[in-house]
Amino acid sequence: MEDRKIRVAITHGDTNGVGYEVILKAFDDPAMLDLCTPIVYGSPKVAAYHRKALELETNFSIINKAEEAKDGRLNLLTCFDDEIKIDLGQPSPEAGLAALKALDRAMEDYRKGLFDVLVTAPINKSDIQGEGFHFTGHTEYLEAKAGDGKKALMILMNDDLRVALVTTHLAIRDVAEAITKPRIVEKATIFHQALKRDLRISSPRLAILALNPHASDEGLLGTEENDIIRPAIAELEQQGIQAFGPYPADGFFGSGAYARFDGVLAMYHDQGLGPFKSIISDDGVNFTAGLPLIRTSPAHGTAYDLAGKGIADENSMRHAIYLAIDVFRNRQHYDEPMGNPLPKLYHEKRDDSEKVRFTVPKDKKQ
Amino acid sequence: MEDRKIRVAITHGDTNGVGYEVILKAFDDPAMLDLCTPIVYGSPKVAAYHRKALELETNFSIINKAEEAKDGRLNLLTCFDDEIKIDLGQPSPEAGLAALKALDRAMEDYRKGLFDVLVTAPINKSDIQGEGFHFTGHTEYLEAKAGDGKKALMILMNDDLRVALVTTHLAIRDVAEAITKPRIVEKATIFHQALKRDLRISSPRLAILALNPHASDEGLLGTEENDIIRPAIAELEQQGIQAFGPYPADGFFGSGAYARFDGVLAMYHDQGLGPFKSIISDDGVNFTAGLPLIRTSPAHGTAYDLAGKGIADENSMRHAIYLAIDVFRNRQHYDEPMGNPLPKLYHEKRDDSEKVRFTVPKDKKQ
Repeated sequence: MEDRKIRVAITHGDTNGVGYEVILKAFDDPAMLDLCTPIVYGSPKVAAYHRKALELETNFSIINKAEEAKDGRLNLLTCFDDEIKIDLGQPSPEAGLAALKALDRAMEDYRKGLFDVLVTAPINKSDIQGEGFHFTGHTEYLEAKAGDGKKALMILMNDDLRVALVTTHLAIRDVAEAITKPRIVEKATIFHQALKRDLRISSPRLAILALNPHASDEGLLGTEENDIIRPAIAELEQQGIQAFGPYPADGFFGSGAYARFDGVLAMYHDQGLGPFKSIISDDGVNFTAGLPLIRTSPAHGTAYDLAGKGIADENSMRHAIYLAIDVFRNRQHYDEPMGNPLPKLYHEKRDDSEKVRFTVPKDKKQ
Repeated sequence: MEDRKIRVAITHGDTNGVGYEVILKAFDDPAMLDLCTPIVYGSPKVAAYHRKALELETNFSIINKAEEAKDGRLNLLTCFDDEIKIDLGQPSPEAGLAALKALDRAMEDYRKGLFDVLVTAPINKSDIQGEGFHFTGHTEYLEAKAGDGKKALMILMNDDLRVALVTTHLAIRDVAEAITKPRIVEKATIFHQALKRDLRISSPRLAILALNPHASDEGLLGTEENDIIRPAIAELEQQGIQAFGPYPADGFFGSGAYARFDGVLAMYHDQGLGPFKSIISDDGVNFTAGLPLIRTSPAHGTAYDLAGKGIADENSMRHAIYLAIDVFRNRQHYDEPMGNPLPKLYHEKRDDSEKVRFTVPKDKKQ
């Protein structure tokens, strides 16, 4: 990499929510501009509206192409020129469309390599639906748009706890059917890789939660623990991934058992995120692992009830930016030694299998 | 009531878990014997084993019938004479059978009116199964044995948060099907009554959680919010019960919104109990509402991993005893004025409908 600042693309999200508030507040601290060069994908008019309504003083510089972004300032890229109605705290199709325009523009620029990492402000998953967006969330959208065939994994995290989900935005009615051995193995493997490569945990330990209450009490309350989850854990172990469980979710979080693990794989949304949000304070971040694109976001939603009041906390947005930068650097460091394997020693030339075993790390083979 | 201490029956639970440890530790404080007269349904041999293994000094007096219980001491009622093998921290059919014998004896004595309230130490729901017990937990057992046709509601609570469940010990696969409008209305009504009569909250406010993630995002992730839960809330309101929602579970607990409500009705086990156990410390209590019998228990399980180490915390057991006593007194106070309606005033005699409206509280009619 050249010696330049990491470029952080930030999409403005739903324009009636707290997106602009947390972005502007986060960059009110000049130290943030020492860490990265931000490019907000949004609208100068909407940004100015929020800035005025909230009496914020953060400056931004309007640009029309990502190439114009300069270090040391908050670059605001005009994704659309139209006037749109801002209705603070209210869902509206206009606000959804504005969010989508920013995302789509960011995807174009990602393809051109115009930024390094993506941070997304929250969208309203209902009002963004329509032509061009038929996904249940950012994670699914990015998997389709920037996945290159890879599978995404949503990890919710702060410094103490990392929770990923086997199923994400899925009705409870469909959850049990969606819990399969291959899917658990796939998600746990992505999680394991992300902990190693993105977060530099050398030998990660994963806790796998049960699907049913009390981990089914030995089959009394469901069969998936014995038929699906335990075999999946056995397969992970065979692959050299340290996976333990299945643990009953309520006691696992309640007893603080999660402190003994580097990652917790929950079976469905509320099972993982209910306890996660109960345990963390305001520093939760959503990280989309598994994709070539590094994407983070604050762990909160549009927070309509807070919009326009000036009381939204920007800490989660700030941590989302920190994490995106950390993951970008970690991936570079992790990948570097792999890019330059040691030159062959004389005795290795005789036996390729030995050479492969010693020079290519296990992760690369999977 | 005569002027005697409240008689608290305490079943010893799984004999390989922490049951005896938390019972003995709770009554190590002599002040507890000022509050109530405890009768432990168990086995003196097993109690002595635990006492010795844990180097505890709590004294108990062996009795053979509840009628022999005396105030000012920890009465230990012999429910069986057989020697049983104690295998601390291990599930075993013997330990399950021992737990069941204590429960069955307590049910006999309840029928005879020999105690006022029941506190249960934890059982292992798997190893207690067999002839005489084919229930998924204490709550279901007690509903069948001591319900007199009434429906039980499991409420998990501490001073700040009370969570009840529409479905309890049910596989996730079967949850969506079990969420019906009549069931939500029934559970919310029992919850409302319990908050009024058992906990003396004059005008309780209930939060009803959504079934699906994000409360289905306007139908994107499931239909139950619109088709079942919202109509149930409307019906509750018509009945004069303050019910609000449906709220997405993760954000509801994460934002601390529960502080604005007297009770939270969750749709299923892990949705309610994962966050509950994450939020509370060691003072959680399980209260079975809706039955004539008042029953509480610590919110923890057999805690096999702690058994025999002497480190189990008795605080939850102590709070379970406090709550059982409180509910007993609250019911007496609540029922008293209903037992002696005001004498009819002259003008009321002319119109029975008016009289009924003024003298019989709404709750009695439901």
